[in-house]
Amino acid sequence: MANSARQLRLGAFLMATGHHIAAWRHPDVPADPLDFSVYRRAAQIAEAARFDALFVADSVAVFGDEPASHTARSVYFEPLTLHAALSTVTERIGLVATATTTYNEPYQVARQFASLDHLSGGRVGWNLVTSDAALEAQNFNRDEHLGHAERYARAREFHRVVTGLWDSWADDAFLRDKASGQFYDPGKLHVLNHRGEHFKVRGPLNVARSPQGRPVVVQAGSSETGRELAAETAEVVFTAQTSLTNAQAFYADLKGRLGKFGRDEDSLKIMPGAFVVVGQSETEAREKFEAFQELVEPQVGVALLGRMLGNFDLSEYPLDGPLPELPLTDSGQRSRQQLLTELAGAENLTLGQLGRRIAGGRGHYSLIGTPTQIADELQAWFEGRAADGFNVLVPHLPTGLEEFATQVVPELQRRGLFRREYEGRTLREHLGLARPKNPFFG
Amino acid sequence: MANSARQLRLGAFLMATGHHIAAWRHPDVPADPLDFSVYRRAAQIAEAARFDALFVADSVAVFGDEPASHTARSVYFEPLTLHAALSTVTERIGLVATATTTYNEPYQVARQFASLDHLSGGRVGWNLVTSDAALEAQNFNRDEHLGHAERYARAREFHRVVTGLWDSWADDAFLRDKASGQFYDPGKLHVLNHRGEHFKVRGPLNVARSPQGRPVVVQAGSSETGRELAAETAEVVFTAQTSLTNAQAFYADLKGRLGKFGRDEDSLKIMPGAFVVVGQSETEAREKFEAFQELVEPQVGVALLGRMLGNFDLSEYPLDGPLPELPLTDSGQRSRQQLLTELAGAENLTLGQLGRRIAGGRGHYSLIGTPTQIADELQAWFEGRAADGFNVLVPHLPTGLEEFATQVVPELQRRGLFRREYEGRTLREHLGLARPKNPFFG
Repeated sequence: MANSARQLRLGAFLMATGHHIAAWRHPDVPADPLDFSVYRRAAQIAEAARFDALFVADSVAVFGDEPASHTARSVYFEPLTLHAALSTVTERIGLVATATTTYNEPYQVARQFASLDHLSGGRVGWNLVTSDAALEAQNFNRDEHLGHAERYARAREFHRVVTGLWDSWADDAFLRDKASGQFYDPGKLHVLNHRGEHFKVRGPLNVARSPQGRPVVVQAGSSETGRELAAETAEVVFTAQTSLTNAQAFYADLKGRLGKFGRDEDSLKIMPGAFVVVGQSETEAREKFEAFQELVEPQVGVALLGRMLGNFDLSEYPLDGPLPELPLTDSGQRSRQQLLTELAGAENLTLGQLGRRIAGGRGHYSLIGTPTQIADELQAWFEGRAADGFNVLVPHLPTGLEEFATQVVPELQRRGLFRREYEGRTLREHLGLARPKNPFFG
Repeated sequence: MANSARQLRLGAFLMATGHHIAAWRHPDVPADPLDFSVYRRAAQIAEAARFDALFVADSVAVFGDEPASHTARSVYFEPLTLHAALSTVTERIGLVATATTTYNEPYQVARQFASLDHLSGGRVGWNLVTSDAALEAQNFNRDEHLGHAERYARAREFHRVVTGLWDSWADDAFLRDKASGQFYDPGKLHVLNHRGEHFKVRGPLNVARSPQGRPVVVQAGSSETGRELAAETAEVVFTAQTSLTNAQAFYADLKGRLGKFGRDEDSLKIMPGAFVVVGQSETEAREKFEAFQELVEPQVGVALLGRMLGNFDLSEYPLDGPLPELPLTDSGQRSRQQLLTELAGAENLTLGQLGRRIAGGRGHYSLIGTPTQIADELQAWFEGRAADGFNVLVPHLPTGLEEFATQVVPELQRRGLFRREYEGRTLREHLGLARPKNPFFG
């Protein structure tokens, strides 16, 4: 196929030990979530397969201090330091790090991402999230987390400050004229002087405008407010979708919102998560997956479920009973709660079964099969306008990623759906996103 | 000499383009402060010479937006992302990054340093500073900077929270028992529950106790309050001293304060800054230095002087007049103000001359001479109990560092004052500092 055909995008979701909650118990998996060599290996596998980016999620608390949750999810690298380290052991692949707008300061976030964009030669993305857990609030001088509306208002303003700071300097501000002694042109420096509801930030940023102009802005919100924020400000949306029909509806809805913000469809890439287990036969793939599932202790799955549903403690409910009715929370996880309640109902799962089920794919679209079967599914979603690409979640690292990279990626390449070589150098170039103009300097 | 003799410690102070304010104008100097390859080269030079650590200073504002200050100091890498990148291109050398306690959140600081300590295999130090500039305050939701006393009270509490978070997990908390499914021992997790004057932080930290137990704590305060904080909490003190006598007095004073905190003398290393220009003859070294000095525009020197004296705008005063009398500020820079006023008086310098003088060594001890002369001076300070080692500041990077590393370091090694090989792996081991016990777990 010609290179000009629409190409799908691939992100590799890196989570210590792997996406499956019990991955660390698997004999092939290095069980230390703070072993940098595993990340290095995974990053290099993804880069060799020409992935667009590495994604790293984040929380700002330990959720595992409930006794049931003795999982490998309690400790991990902080995303910005991790990606800065990965930037020197890779050359082309994008580096997307999560940073919350609920507890950080925009100057610091703008600065660290801009610094990393310079360090990496323009390969950085910021996954802008809000935080909704009391345990996180309590690490940042608050007793309770902020309500959904306030969190999103703060996030919207936070984004405005960060992007304004990224535009502190014109692209050609730095003359570095040794003869005259003029290092920069003072007419090409913009002092933001932001004074808003949540933040007062003078600026300018002490980092030059970065190689990409601005790091790529990524989001994952799926509530009404989250979709509006994404339609206005996101360039990539990472989303959990469990069926083609739902994914198509989400895709159409989000792309349909872009027009009112003066944006065209291509300026936002939608990348659902795809939890992938590859086998030489479908049976082998299923057996692989079941081997992971058997390693999940029921109470670990249920604790994870409680967290996903909005920080409920479900440990008092019987494992063989139904998912209890839970109050609708103001936690921004309403849409996820609805999804999981529907899933339990549709498949008649007990609480314990649902927990184990969630522990596997974590509510993401699950693809368990041969390379051909997986490529068929990805192609159907991609061509059916359910996705512009996928964030690939593998059960265990680095092996699961290596299987996807060496078995599924070549199949996507043969079908002309995915690049064989990087065309550009920056994450924006990989994703086909324009370099933003600096609005302060025509 | 035997290895057991007291050894001096060396830090390499990395500042984009070099320590001399006009370094960027020098024909040999890469004038882009955001060129990672210069830092990589400097780091590798320092490591090959067996330096203990790389030091990186920091501010959280652009001070150069006054028209006079068209210097290369306006933009630079953020220290934590820079050091994370350097951690993968070096193997042994320590990595000391500055982070302010005045605007950051302790959970974030604890986390990023702990993450970097894991990434680097135990090579990290935290240079704990307070911030005293209105331009910095204005980037963090404040109109004015905090007063000296409040800044230090906040710093003290910040340190307590950060070290408490670093001790969230016992060193042997992580069982990673694949058979039983027990990832960690819940009895080896400490929830900090800090509730103080400035911070409420629950914990625990979502990073395991780091290879060094705790990153090394570095400070640079020289006021009475600063010395008390250092005597209680610092493991390395970086200080600006301009004469052997003053340095000896500072050394004796600070070491003398350790006893009341139950600390022994060796638990705190005092490392004055040494601004070094090396030549084959003294004349050559002087000429080298003068070549830099001639590149300083007088108003740039005066603007820098104004900032060092406590954020005064001196641009209205005549360059050929005296240093004006300035009010004593509550900026924590009183001691520096006194030092500079004395220097101007003693050498009868005009404002312009003082500015240019400051632009060179920045108030640090200046050594301009042959390798033998420089080694003699360093040895005299070291043996005269004025220093446990030095933070080496070179006029230009990477060349100035290379000259020191290849000409002065071998002379120090010949004299038995400095290591020829690293004895240990961690920064603590290089510096001869004990690994702190975790007080929450016996």
